[in-house]
Amino acid sequence: MAGGAVDSGSEAGPVVDRGPKQDRSRVTRKRLLEAAVSCLAEHGWAGSTVSVVAERAGVSRGAAQHHFRTREDLFTAAVEYVAEERSLALRALFPEGPADRRAVVAAVVDLYTGPLFRAALHLWVAASNEEQLRPRVTELEARVGRETHRIAVELLRADETVPGVRETVQGLLDMARGLGLANLLTDDTGRRDRVVAQWAALLDEVLDRV
Amino acid sequence: MAGGAVDSGSEAGPVVDRGPKQDRSRVTRKRLLEAAVSCLAEHGWAGSTVSVVAERAGVSRGAAQHHFRTREDLFTAAVEYVAEERSLALRALFPEGPADRRAVVAAVVDLYTGPLFRAALHLWVAASNEEQLRPRVTELEARVGRETHRIAVELLRADETVPGVRETVQGLLDMARGLGLANLLTDDTGRRDRVVAQWAALLDEVLDRV
Repeated sequence: MAGGAVDSGSEAGPVVDRGPKQDRSRVTRKRLLEAAVSCLAEHGWAGSTVSVVAERAGVSRGAAQHHFRTREDLFTAAVEYVAEERSLALRALFPEGPADRRAVVAAVVDLYTGPLFRAALHLWVAASNEEQLRPRVTELEARVGRETHRIAVELLRADETVPGVRETVQGLLDMARGLGLANLLTDDTGRRDRVVAQWAALLDEVLDRV
Repeated sequence: MAGGAVDSGSEAGPVVDRGPKQDRSRVTRKRLLEAAVSCLAEHGWAGSTVSVVAERAGVSRGAAQHHFRTREDLFTAAVEYVAEERSLALRALFPEGPADRRAVVAAVVDLYTGPLFRAALHLWVAASNEEQLRPRVTELEARVGRETHRIAVELLRADETVPGVRETVQGLLDMARGLGLANLLTDDTGRRDRVVAQWAALLDEVLDRV
């Protein structure tokens, strides 16, 4: 971005000058990030390289490397980008804020069953054996986890000043992650729906007691 | 085993003849299985081959291939073997059967935080991208999951004829799996202990209501 400002060299219309170029750059970046997540979800870490992603996104390898210097940069940015999109989508499902708790629990669990979770899982597992990836992914996981927790607390109207409430919500998110894992090899929808219905009812009761 | 009986060629003392040979074979097999789980936990699927495991177990590659014809055979057998060992160990913790529910919940969650879970996770994630591995691991996961569920139901004194009880126990096992995942990159012990304490108390209350 700083480079773009220098390049434009114009005092008169920097916004107009920079606009379309930045737009194109943003579109390319977005295409790379989305291709990276799909690639990771489908082929795992071993099968996910910058070249494969660039080809999938219809972008030259040079352009891809202009946006992301390393393979680690590309894939951690991709998981973070999609996680942010999912957080926005979760909030958008409940535009009025706090909502029916069973619907919120179901929506939170849904976050862990799609391609994003699959991609993130591949990245986590790869990070557990690769020193270059590990600190990046650890930090990313903590950040995304905090944000998901914050949204869940808000939508569930959970008062974390009450002892045990924080751990109750954390346990729900751990369960959601475990349900995502159970969905990795087979379609676990039927069983998952029953588990979610039961625990959402328990959670509703526990949080209402306060 | 059938081959061993033919080899011995003696009508007089087949049991004495076969004994030590079978013992050695069993010891070799056990060493291979344990080495395979450690290897998978430390290096992931990509770094886990029959040769690496044979070397780690101090067994020749030929001997390893005598026991396990393919890489898939070795690693699925290894995860199954260690899962069975862990089930026995879980039962051994509560020799009198049903026990204090909070202790049972803590012990069940512990199943998902050690090297076995890490190894199984690598195998699951690899299976999600490898067609050769997928049906084997899917079947193994279902079998191990059913056995863990059975033990949990028994130790928790959960009456599954009561509506919702089955799903309550399933949700607990999903949470345990999610807690295992959260422990993959960082030592999550402190947070996990608090979540387990809270959810064990909730579970105790729910199951006692009946």
